[in-house]
Amino acid sequence: QRQRDTMLTQPLIPITKQQLLSNVDIIANMRYAFRSEFNEGAYTGSRFNMEQFRLEFRGKVLDKLYFRFRDRYTRDPTTQTVDNLSRSTDLAYLRFDPDEHWKIYAGKLCADWGGFEFDANPIEIYEYSDIVEYADNFLSGAGVGYVTNNKQEFTFQLLNSRTATFGELYDSVPGLRPSKFPFAAVGNWRGELFDGKVSTIWSYSIFKEAHNTYMNYIALGTQLKLKNFQLQYDFKWSDEQLDRKTIVSDIIKPLGIQAATDAKYISHWMRADVRVAPIVNLFFVGMVDFANWDDNPDPSVDSRLRTAWGYMPGVEVFPFKKYNLKIYGIMVGRKYVYSDYAKNTLGASNTDNYRISVGIISPILVL
Amino acid sequence: QRQRDTMLTQPLIPITKQQLLSNVDIIANMRYAFRSEFNEGAYTGSRFNMEQFRLEFRGKVLDKLYFRFRDRYTRDPTTQTVDNLSRSTDLAYLRFDPDEHWKIYAGKLCADWGGFEFDANPIEIYEYSDIVEYADNFLSGAGVGYVTNNKQEFTFQLLNSRTATFGELYDSVPGLRPSKFPFAAVGNWRGELFDGKVSTIWSYSIFKEAHNTYMNYIALGTQLKLKNFQLQYDFKWSDEQLDRKTIVSDIIKPLGIQAATDAKYISHWMRADVRVAPIVNLFFVGMVDFANWDDNPDPSVDSRLRTAWGYMPGVEVFPFKKYNLKIYGIMVGRKYVYSDYAKNTLGASNTDNYRISVGIISPILVL
Amino acid sequence: QRQRDTMLTQPLIPITKQQLLSNVDIIANMRYAFRSEFNEGAYTGSRFNMEQFRLEFRGKVLDKLYFRFRDRYTRDPTTQTVDNLSRSTDLAYLRFDPDEHWKIYAGKLCADWGGFEFDANPIEIYEYSDIVEYADNFLSGAGVGYVTNNKQEFTFQLLNSRTATFGELYDSVPGLRPSKFPFAAVGNWRGELFDGKVSTIWSYSIFKEAHNTYMNYIALGTQLKLKNFQLQYDFKWSDEQLDRKTIVSDIIKPLGIQAATDAKYISHWMRADVRVAPIVNLFFVGMVDFANWDDNPDPSVDSRLRTAWGYMPGVEVFPFKKYNLKIYGIMVGRKYVYSDYAKNTLGASNTDNYRISVGIISPILVL
Repeated sequence: QRQRDTMLTQPLIPITKQQLLSNVDIIANMRYAFRSEFNEGAYTGSRFNMEQFRLEFRGKVLDKLYFRFRDRYTRDPTTQTVDNLSRSTDLAYLRFDPDEHWKIYAGKLCADWGGFEFDANPIEIYEYSDIVEYADNFLSGAGVGYVTNNKQEFTFQLLNSRTATFGELYDSVPGLRPSKFPFAAVGNWRGELFDGKVSTIWSYSIFKEAHNTYMNYIALGTQLKLKNFQLQYDFKWSDEQLDRKTIVSDIIKPLGIQAATDAKYISHWMRADVRVAPIVNLFFVGMVDFANWDDNPDPSVDSRLRTAWGYMPGVEVFPFKKYNLKIYGIMVGRKYVYSDYAKNTLGASNTDNYRISVGIISPILVL
Repeated sequence: QRQRDTMLTQPLIPITKQQLLSNVDIIANMRYAFRSEFNEGAYTGSRFNMEQFRLEFRGKVLDKLYFRFRDRYTRDPTTQTVDNLSRSTDLAYLRFDPDEHWKIYAGKLCADWGGFEFDANPIEIYEYSDIVEYADNFLSGAGVGYVTNNKQEFTFQLLNSRTATFGELYDSVPGLRPSKFPFAAVGNWRGELFDGKVSTIWSYSIFKEAHNTYMNYIALGTQLKLKNFQLQYDFKWSDEQLDRKTIVSDIIKPLGIQAATDAKYISHWMRADVRVAPIVNLFFVGMVDFANWDDNPDPSVDSRLRTAWGYMPGVEVFPFKKYNLKIYGIMVGRKYVYSDYAKNTLGASNTDNYRISVGIISPILVL
Repeated sequence: QRQRDTMLTQPLIPITKQQLLSNVDIIANMRYAFRSEFNEGAYTGSRFNMEQFRLEFRGKVLDKLYFRFRDRYTRDPTTQTVDNLSRSTDLAYLRFDPDEHWKIYAGKLCADWGGFEFDANPIEIYEYSDIVEYADNFLSGAGVGYVTNNKQEFTFQLLNSRTATFGELYDSVPGLRPSKFPFAAVGNWRGELFDGKVSTIWSYSIFKEAHNTYMNYIALGTQLKLKNFQLQYDFKWSDEQLDRKTIVSDIIKPLGIQAATDAKYISHWMRADVRVAPIVNLFFVGMVDFANWDDNPDPSVDSRLRTAWGYMPGVEVFPFKKYNLKIYGIMVGRKYVYSDYAKNTLGASNTDNYRISVGIISPILVL
């Protein structure tokens, strides 16, 4: 019953625990709300909802050596075929910083895509834009980062392009064969300009989805930060030779096509925050996502199939000076508008709904 | 790969960890036994069994701010539709105590129903009475509590009435339509009388199960505590316009009814403990549950369908002075007696079985 | 919402936490790799893979009282019928050491089978031999150990023989009926000879698989340890009246037999380590597993159905002096050779594949 480490290796040295302790965090990332839902203006129902619950262990295990692990309790923990790890596990990686400029890490990672929406802690994002919502954001791989003396950071990652196999995701697609190494390569620039007033998280990624079949993704996030005002704008653009987000595929299902080719997604997202008082933040998030299909056999049809609007006015209150807990109230509105072609030929229909939520956000620091 | 908190918020301040530590517990609530099972007096089999295993994190995260999280490893972790949290997660909530009288809390909670059986740590209850066993005890919601100067405590909670949707639980029921906000409201009194010799946990709850369809639940737990003797008695009564416990529905299934209306459950439970020596506790638990159906189309039939008896004599030994670990031996007997109508018309048949268990109980304090 | 411990018991005494802390470990046992796979010499694909991820809590909860809990994130957490615990949970037990010679423990355990392959931390074993891979290694039960003054250790365990029921595993087998107490009894000797230069982990186990139907298992592990050289050799032999490993049953499925009787498995495993430099370890693992069927109705047929070869040359580098992290490169080769009978009559065909992995191993000490 012991299962010891192999004898020839160094024994596991318990670096003084007290010292370790100040470097380790256990965090319960939680967003909890009472929400009331409305569809086409009519009240449909209310309920308490655990919108996010992700338990996290992170810290320094040795000088220059860090780890991070995060697991969700709001998603079924199914073991994934490609990377062998539970789908509920967001993060499980080790990071080594050889000096103050370089970092190297490997494991299940958050892909380092650009944009401030994606970069935020998930508990801060009340509703994701379609282009992030439908992406596989946590992938196994490895990365390297470099920070310049003037705080510009450059990252490069090589990742599995997904956690499920080609067959599991797409079944079989005529004319396509699976890739032997379906990878994603991500390059990212995190910039600080004008004394930190402007920051950027810009990225370019290429995914190999199948043999000779790629997806190109650009995400450009830019932030302006003044004393009591902050503005974030993300532009995201994804050109998918094989439809990875599956939004287009779902819409054109009536045509008898299993997986769409040449889908294109474009997204604009912005968030404005005004700190009207030390404990009160007003904000507004606006977003629009376009879903296009460039491979329609009928050339007379416009490629845009759907436009998805999102609008979220809200208020956040910080009742504790010394603790990062927020009480919030928000309206989350979503409007999906389909093209005439999608409506008339494919039977799609517009939807317009919103919810009003009152709740708590806290990355509860357990330890 | 960072997923930072939004910049305008206060940074997560690491209150000196050493101080935190003394306020945080990690607990593995475990009951483990070797059990031998008997049916109608005949030995049917033996096995080692992890009767309970619930991992818990709890503590103070800030002055007056507490959290609690508890998750089971003995139940499949399926994400629930209504509150979005795993079915294996019992508790995930934050509590704020503005002063020594008031407390406010929100998240996935243990419903504050009365009765000493329900209020005990699950590792202490060798077998639950039917009325508790078939209830949904962990629900998302919010609550407020008030403690008077003389230690009477009053609680009020508002909760989702369940974790699954109406459709998932009942499919469709003729004449009923789902409620837009299926809630449960719970009022509770925890009393201390005669210098703590007598305590009470009394509660009344109302559940909205469907449109215009309610469940009323009363649980009255009373405890007498003397020097080496303790007696607890719970009376529980649940009047269900739509059968939530599903015991009646299961019995009348041969009538072709999907979900019974007008079910009524009544339960008596008592536990007596005698501390015969500092390290030895003798106890006996007796319980009886009645399942009634008041909506039988045949008025000549008695409403009582089933009487469920339980009897559990046992001994608990505390081998460690400084640690809350028990070794126990118990006989858990269960006898289900059906009415003549249930037997003759519905094909039910009586059962009589028991098990003998020897095991360990401990809320193992990991940290 | 409190769920307190029963009042008559001792309160949970928080032994000074600072003291506890130095006795408790939280460990993330991780092996992560980039692997490239080859089949019959042809490249078939590459991917990042979390080969092992097991989170562990262990430590001393009181003088002489220990616990250990370990759970996998690479296996679906399905609750098991027999012991009621998640299949993903490897270990959940309490251990009590009355004095320096004796230890007693109970819970879900690692069966104390012999052999150095099985005894190692799973993150150290790049690929298991068939006889270990197909066994149920984590079982609920209880055990007792005795260490002599000259460091010989003897263990005896009594366990459930499996976590699933007879019906779930074998459906029904003609002529066999389930056992009322399907147990496993394990005896183990861990020896230290010649000043620790030679060690042994030898065991004998008997499993009751069904009424009057047994499995006998012998595992003899022997290790020679010199200054910079270590050699381990395991001999394992399993005689199964009802085929538990299911390898034989799978091969003879074309005969229309659901579960084979009289299967026999024999395994040889060796690992040689040479520490060529303080931070570099070269190693080679070789193994061969034989799968025999002694109950073939045709007596002219040789009982050996399959021979499974494994060969793993590799290198391990220890970049940190003070931390047990390894970077490794390994080739894992597997060759399955079937008998003429298996090929010609049962349609089996030989396979020959290997993978090349580069990765990290670490029992990450979180706390």
